Amino acid sequence: MPTSYLRFSGQSLERLAALSDGIFAVAMTLLVLDLRVPLNDALHPQEALWHGGAVASESVVWHVLVDLSPQLLTYLMSFLTLGIFWMAQQTQLGNLKGTNRDLTWIHLAFMFAVALLPFSTALLAEYITYRLALVTYWLNLLLLGVVLFASLTYAARADLMKPDIAAAALAASRRRILVYQMLYAVAAAACVFNTYLSIALIVMVQLNSAIAPRIRPLNSF
Amino acid sequence: MPTSYLRFSGQSLERLAALSDGIFAVAMTLLVLDLRVPLNDALHPQEALWHGGAVASESVVWHVLVDLSPQLLTYLMSFLTLGIFWMAQQTQLGNLKGTNRDLTWIHLAFMFAVALLPFSTALLAEYITYRLALVTYWLNLLLLGVVLFASLTYAARADLMKPDIAAAALAASRRRILVYQMLYAVAAAACVFNTYLSIALIVMVQLNSAIAPRIRPLNSF
Amino acid sequence: MPTSYLRFSGQSLERLAALSDGIFAVAMTLLVLDLRVPLNDALHPQEALWHGGAVASESVVWHVLVDLSPQLLTYLMSFLTLGIFWMAQQTQLGNLKGTNRDLTWIHLAFMFAVALLPFSTALLAEYITYRLALVTYWLNLLLLGVVLFASLTYAARADLMKPDIAAAALAASRRRILVYQMLYAVAAAACVFNTYLSIALIVMVQLNSAIAPRIRPLNSF
Amino acid sequence: MPTSYLRFSGQSLERLAALSDGIFAVAMTLLVLDLRVPLNDALHPQEALWHGGAVASESVVWHVLVDLSPQLLTYLMSFLTLGIFWMAQQTQLGNLKGTNRDLTWIHLAFMFAVALLPFSTALLAEYITYRLALVTYWLNLLLLGVVLFASLTYAARADLMKPDIAAAALAASRRRILVYQMLYAVAAAACVFNTYLSIALIVMVQLNSAIAPRIRPLNSF
Repeated sequence: MPTSYLRFSGQSLERLAALSDGIFAVAMTLLVLDLRVPLNDALHPQEALWHGGAVASESVVWHVLVDLSPQLLTYLMSFLTLGIFWMAQQTQLGNLKGTNRDLTWIHLAFMFAVALLPFSTALLAEYITYRLALVTYWLNLLLLGVVLFASLTYAARADLMKPDIAAAALAASRRRILVYQMLYAVAAAACVFNTYLSIALIVMVQLNSAIAPRIRPLNSF
Repeated sequence: MPTSYLRFSGQSLERLAALSDGIFAVAMTLLVLDLRVPLNDALHPQEALWHGGAVASESVVWHVLVDLSPQLLTYLMSFLTLGIFWMAQQTQLGNLKGTNRDLTWIHLAFMFAVALLPFSTALLAEYITYRLALVTYWLNLLLLGVVLFASLTYAARADLMKPDIAAAALAASRRRILVYQMLYAVAAAACVFNTYLSIALIVMVQLNSAIAPRIRPLNSF
Repeated sequence: MPTSYLRFSGQSLERLAALSDGIFAVAMTLLVLDLRVPLNDALHPQEALWHGGAVASESVVWHVLVDLSPQLLTYLMSFLTLGIFWMAQQTQLGNLKGTNRDLTWIHLAFMFAVALLPFSTALLAEYITYRLALVTYWLNLLLLGVVLFASLTYAARADLMKPDIAAAALAASRRRILVYQMLYAVAAAACVFNTYLSIALIVMVQLNSAIAPRIRPLNSF
Repeated sequence: MPTSYLRFSGQSLERLAALSDGIFAVAMTLLVLDLRVPLNDALHPQEALWHGGAVASESVVWHVLVDLSPQLLTYLMSFLTLGIFWMAQQTQLGNLKGTNRDLTWIHLAFMFAVALLPFSTALLAEYITYRLALVTYWLNLLLLGVVLFASLTYAARADLMKPDIAAAALAASRRRILVYQMLYAVAAAACVFNTYLSIALIVMVQLNSAIAPRIRPLNSF
């Protein structure tokens, strides 16, 4: 029977979870590689570009940290992003009774968006005042949400959810993705005024998702 | 008994799967490191190489994205490659009842080819119009296919497959590898005309493998 | 029911452990990327910055190793740090009967501190004689300890510990974190005199934690 | 009871295996980062260091591949090294009935040696004709063997081996480590004549270990 290969392929939930954890772990740690420590001019005077002469006072390290603060801000935001989407994907996989080839490919598309995030983050950190860099970052957030929504919808339709998952819980999960994506879109739109405002709003939405789940009005979705 | 070491070694399917997932995860995420964001000339005027003066308009980020588009294209292709071969290896390991030292070494050779892919990808992205760069990339694809085929053949001969795997399913898997490798070879040969044509054909073959498995004529293998 | 999403989310101890192992593994290996091998001037004479001419004698490699010795020292210290905190987190997770969304976020904060360590290490390696670099490193150590303490306290209060964990064992774990954090603080304070003294003291505290657990006086905590 | 923390700590074989697989996976994949693709001078004429003018012929890619051949050779050797030691550690862990804090620290020391290998490899690749670079690489191989031997010896003495492991199998494993370390030492000593000779001998010993286990005379140990 010609298609028998396909029936056996892509059916391991355990390996899908293991690959996901690996990709999230690498992406979360690679983000920090953008926090590049500049060379110490006192050690490498020939390569000193920024300072007129050898500077040996403590203030040098302070300046390094201040110069890296936009990167630290975008790094924190991206770590929160990855934490939130890792949690969301973990919840989805935990509700599945199995997977198939199509659902596995949907999750590979999800991991593609995860693996792109260090790039979007580096772009935003370097061009933090540019609206297009912020819009690129938001498109990455949007892609994560769209694929996660597609995965939920497909899993329900293909009868891959555990039997004890109530329709109400499914609807709540879908509504949650939609609400947060709307909040992200509003935050991103604020870049018309200022990109820092957008970043602050995105971080606030994320912190609300992460650490304030008991504040009812914002989390009744 | 002198060879007793060998009888106990390399027998864990779980650790082989875990190492594979780790290597695929790192390779998939490292690919994106080639999407190097150029320094913002407005922030680092001393290092500005490409532009005559400080450019502060939004179009800078647009140019960055356009300049990175060959890398984005090769990155997408390589992510698809890794997704396809991860799925294929997962299917194979899922059909095994156990492993031994020899089969584990065959899979280590497979992972060597996986770990080489970020290099082939970077080479192709930087020299995207050069036929030899494309041929190098194709040789990497070929190596992945050859080792996977060898692993399937060895596992069947060494009686390591689960007893319920029909001979027909095995033959279908082997045929699948052969057909796709032939399609890749044809796509690579198209670089005689143009390397972009080859890349487009490879991506089409991959997308067919990934997202269109129900289109019968191309997938009856 | 509106909050049903939250009840199902973040409950997998296995995936939390897998993500943690991934992040620790990447961080431990990324540290070594700071041991950058300088280019061989004999091969790349055009880029030779440090040497007047081509140097082809064996002493070149010796100088490379000597020049990298501060990085090797900080690398060893950070590997010990990560080993100690990986062990501590493993012990905590092994004592849990389950997790919930809040505890998972506490551990994500822990992993944020883990992922920051390669940055703190690179900063310290490049600015090894600067007190502020050492204080930054110590703040990272402190953050790891504070989050681990918070996780232990929260897990006990939220009734997530296995039933056979005695109150005395819990208290011992908490006391251990406090004592080691006090020792780290004292070691860091020694940077008033000399940063190398601080590093030596931190490494001694860590080696005591790692390899001398049977020397009673220092480990009766 | 004061030491109760220690009794509960470091006892998970699963997490030790997962951390090991992660570190091996990252190290195996990071190795390839040293295969740095040089910039295409035709695209970046301003940065062209090596060539007098823009070179657009196919031979450019050929020269890139030839220039990278020492790195490819050392990369292959290091991948074999990591494959062999991953297999050896997997065999050891598979023979354990459990672990404790001390054995876990021995394995963390093993992983330290694993994480150092990309550095030793990069040093050797850049300074491939220098004896000290080869000796550094060999010291890394030696450290891997010593720690693995210590782990085997400790596990047997601390009664952590599975009860069905015969003393003869244990002795065979120890003898195997000793024999291979002696062969590596002889190969490294050959650098008195030529470093390439040493590398060729090490690769031959490794290939023998990996792919020729049935050739009796060399594998009766």
